[in-house]
Amino acid sequence: MLFLRKEVFTQVGRFAAVNANASTKFCSLRFAHKPSFTADSYPSLQRDSRYATLNQADVDFLKSILKTEGGSIVNGLDQSTDPSDLDAFNTDWTHKYRGKTEVAIKPKTTQQVSQILKYCNSRKLAVVPQGGNTGLVGGSIPVFDEIVLNLGLMNKIHSFDELSGVLSLDAGVILENADSFLAEKDHMFPLDLGAKGSCQVGGCAATAAGGLRLLRYGSLRGTILGIEAVLPDGTILDNMVTLRKDNTGLDLKQLFIGSEGYLGIITRLTVICPRRPRSTNVAFFGVSSYENVLKAFSESKAYLTEILSAFELMDNTSQRLVDAHSSTQRPLEDEHPFYVLLETQGSNKEHDEQKLNALIEHLIEDEVITDGVIAQDESQLRVLWERREGITECLAKAGSGVYKYDVSLPLKVLYDLVNDTKQRLTDLKLLGESSDHPVIDVVGFGHMGDGNLHLNIAVRKYDKRVEKALQPWVFEWVASHRGSISAEHGLGLLKKPYIGYSKSPEMISLMKILKNVFDPNGIMLPYKYV
Amino acid sequence: MLFLRKEVFTQVGRFAAVNANASTKFCSLRFAHKPSFTADSYPSLQRDSRYATLNQADVDFLKSILKTEGGSIVNGLDQSTDPSDLDAFNTDWTHKYRGKTEVAIKPKTTQQVSQILKYCNSRKLAVVPQGGNTGLVGGSIPVFDEIVLNLGLMNKIHSFDELSGVLSLDAGVILENADSFLAEKDHMFPLDLGAKGSCQVGGCAATAAGGLRLLRYGSLRGTILGIEAVLPDGTILDNMVTLRKDNTGLDLKQLFIGSEGYLGIITRLTVICPRRPRSTNVAFFGVSSYENVLKAFSESKAYLTEILSAFELMDNTSQRLVDAHSSTQRPLEDEHPFYVLLETQGSNKEHDEQKLNALIEHLIEDEVITDGVIAQDESQLRVLWERREGITECLAKAGSGVYKYDVSLPLKVLYDLVNDTKQRLTDLKLLGESSDHPVIDVVGFGHMGDGNLHLNIAVRKYDKRVEKALQPWVFEWVASHRGSISAEHGLGLLKKPYIGYSKSPEMISLMKILKNVFDPNGIMLPYKYV
Repeated sequence: MLFLRKEVFTQVGRFAAVNANASTKFCSLRFAHKPSFTADSYPSLQRDSRYATLNQADVDFLKSILKTEGGSIVNGLDQSTDPSDLDAFNTDWTHKYRGKTEVAIKPKTTQQVSQILKYCNSRKLAVVPQGGNTGLVGGSIPVFDEIVLNLGLMNKIHSFDELSGVLSLDAGVILENADSFLAEKDHMFPLDLGAKGSCQVGGCAATAAGGLRLLRYGSLRGTILGIEAVLPDGTILDNMVTLRKDNTGLDLKQLFIGSEGYLGIITRLTVICPRRPRSTNVAFFGVSSYENVLKAFSESKAYLTEILSAFELMDNTSQRLVDAHSSTQRPLEDEHPFYVLLETQGSNKEHDEQKLNALIEHLIEDEVITDGVIAQDESQLRVLWERREGITECLAKAGSGVYKYDVSLPLKVLYDLVNDTKQRLTDLKLLGESSDHPVIDVVGFGHMGDGNLHLNIAVRKYDKRVEKALQPWVFEWVASHRGSISAEHGLGLLKKPYIGYSKSPEMISLMKILKNVFDPNGIMLPYKYV
Repeated sequence: MLFLRKEVFTQVGRFAAVNANASTKFCSLRFAHKPSFTADSYPSLQRDSRYATLNQADVDFLKSILKTEGGSIVNGLDQSTDPSDLDAFNTDWTHKYRGKTEVAIKPKTTQQVSQILKYCNSRKLAVVPQGGNTGLVGGSIPVFDEIVLNLGLMNKIHSFDELSGVLSLDAGVILENADSFLAEKDHMFPLDLGAKGSCQVGGCAATAAGGLRLLRYGSLRGTILGIEAVLPDGTILDNMVTLRKDNTGLDLKQLFIGSEGYLGIITRLTVICPRRPRSTNVAFFGVSSYENVLKAFSESKAYLTEILSAFELMDNTSQRLVDAHSSTQRPLEDEHPFYVLLETQGSNKEHDEQKLNALIEHLIEDEVITDGVIAQDESQLRVLWERREGITECLAKAGSGVYKYDVSLPLKVLYDLVNDTKQRLTDLKLLGESSDHPVIDVVGFGHMGDGNLHLNIAVRKYDKRVEKALQPWVFEWVASHRGSISAEHGLGLLKKPYIGYSKSPEMISLMKILKNVFDPNGIMLPYKYV
């Protein structure tokens, strides 16, 4: 085994051949085929007969709501509407879910959202709230004919106070736009994730997104200070607090964070934003065993305490996929069983580099890591992140589908799930190199610093045998190791039947009671969540 | 005006005469007189007749619950019980509230709490949960004959995982004990506050305590990962998640954080704990104007981004009180209109000092601060903190009572409230140096970094005229500046009537609906909160 000296480790030459522009060109995600209707792939789901069926009078009324202040509506009931105009609202980007909505409405104001929901509630028309549609569990895609209420046109940034760092904005603002706005003010959004170019801040809040840098900037439950939400009966709940501390009564906004739209729709929020880091360092390690990955994590926390912003795990399979399906260069020549992307963000470049170098020296000396590089400039930094962020897209390109699990586990057993899944699918003769095996490979990666594993199973085609082999087996495995069946992707349609693996009957019962309080007609988010 | 050079600024000599031992000796807080009954000082409060009156059979049953697993009960119905044994449960430490409970029960297990509440619910006996009893709004003190359910004997630390930093412990663990336990593992509790030697972690969670270092370690809403709570009907809600991410359904634990016991009793919690800092620096500045305090804060955030752990404001009046009623030495010779205590916590002493020195150099050069010192050792650091933390205790000693307001405000207007209050009380001839004025002085200090002001009015004696001059005037002032009438101390009895200044009718109505869901008999925390 070759242990590199620090000088070698940080050499710029390792990156010399990298073409930064080429590296960012990932494959397009659109699959060639049109996915099956969710209603067909989940035959156990039946349209709930308590919901009314949308008619032209409904559409006319909804249109009238949009008249004064703008907004848009796609009306499939109208013969002149191109049916494909509804595709973007009916289909998810992984092509796993496809709904049958006839109407998608995009309001521009909270008042309109209130009027729309009030009307739908009175008519018992089912509604599914939709943000950037970047979810992975089918939460934002209708199953049957639920009306899609898309927040995309509510995209104003209202105010930013530089002294306190408090940002106030509409739910439909694209995460990247919010962050770019803040960049000009030397601040940053406290959340970052791969889908930032499409996902909306309201959707992030509604799914309690964790993202890439939770380790450093904390959970949205702590950084979201206020929320404006519209309840299913049209009541506008104004909890737009711009204060860091406010202990006056129950913290109702928390019921909406992570609720996926189950209790109402988030229309605005206030967020406390940190200063933008003046220095970002990214290192990429090759590691010989999972045990050493754990050691590297523990030492990273000790050496980089306040500046450790990401500690991402990638297994070798995931990196082989990136090699095969993207043009990003391999940062390390040799293959390693595991790779770690480590990032620091701080206010002093020199200090951060000193801390990072001290860590690396220590990790090399103690033989915790085998090889590694540190990005020497912004483009190299992007290349390293692409090796991690690009996995999802390359997986999509590897076959014609991916089964995705996003779980939380105690760190010690986190990667065992990947090994055990691979073994199970091999034993069941579902995984193999030849095309008669539905499964191509099992991949493990994720936000290890948060105990969050993304277990992904790439398939040549979706196959019920694979689904049966995985579910509920994966959830049982997770539950038996005291994990969570959804770390950050939420429940949506995919995991609704499995919440019992992570929550007690008393908890679930209470959630349903609360649902009934907020939404007695059950118009919001039918067939999903709890 | 004298602007000190850096060398002078950091001189050790400034602290030479400080006797660290003497400095920590603050006055005892016990007032000589016994406070009036809350029921007498608030004649508008009437005992709610829907509650049953406790009888000997009730006490016998409660005693039987404690039989197997231990626990204790103080039974005032028993003639042989010394009535003063109930004083600690019936009286708050500021001597503003006094209840009339006849029974205080201290269970040892969650099962017992469940059985106790189930019984009280079936009998419609009112209950007030009580932690370390360090509150300031009368939340944990009974008003009439509510049973006190004190968590003091549920004080076990259950587990700590060094890899993830997740601590699992009983609600009744004293905050300082939890932190001492973590210190041995090179970690720290993510919350620190003046009352840490008495307050319990469950009480901190139930009041969403903010404390001294929220700026650095974030809100409990982000750091508490799991909670076990007992509902009024005895249902045990097990949400003891030890994972950093868990997006499976509504985050019910958040309903208990900050609920003051309104919906149930927190019995256990899991908390994610950061590494213990290897370096703590404390600086103490004299500042000539509030405008400069604001500038100093903004620059501190820029220079100390990831290590700024506290930015505390103290006005001159507060420091004069500390001079008069404690033995801590003045850190700065001259008087200044404002003082700032700034703290950094980081992992590298040298780096932290460099950052702090760069900030100070900049603040001196730009004439933002007038004078200052940096603590050179642990005892000096303690002295500086005593100048801030000792204010509350010295206020108590200054007269025979203190009206306390704990508000959040936009930073720009934060100190205006102190000036305006002083002016108002002077105009009303309630504030003056002679003993015929009820008010001694108006003091402003607080966690400025969090926009949190503690407005304190020291009085020679509690006086209805003062209360009338202050309430609802203070709350109206806060509401008109879009602040919160309770930043961190909560609502309790004191602020129950005023929640409308910070929350909309829709929000309050929803809170009451939820109360009815969780506690249809209303046995928990009567007369308080919402």
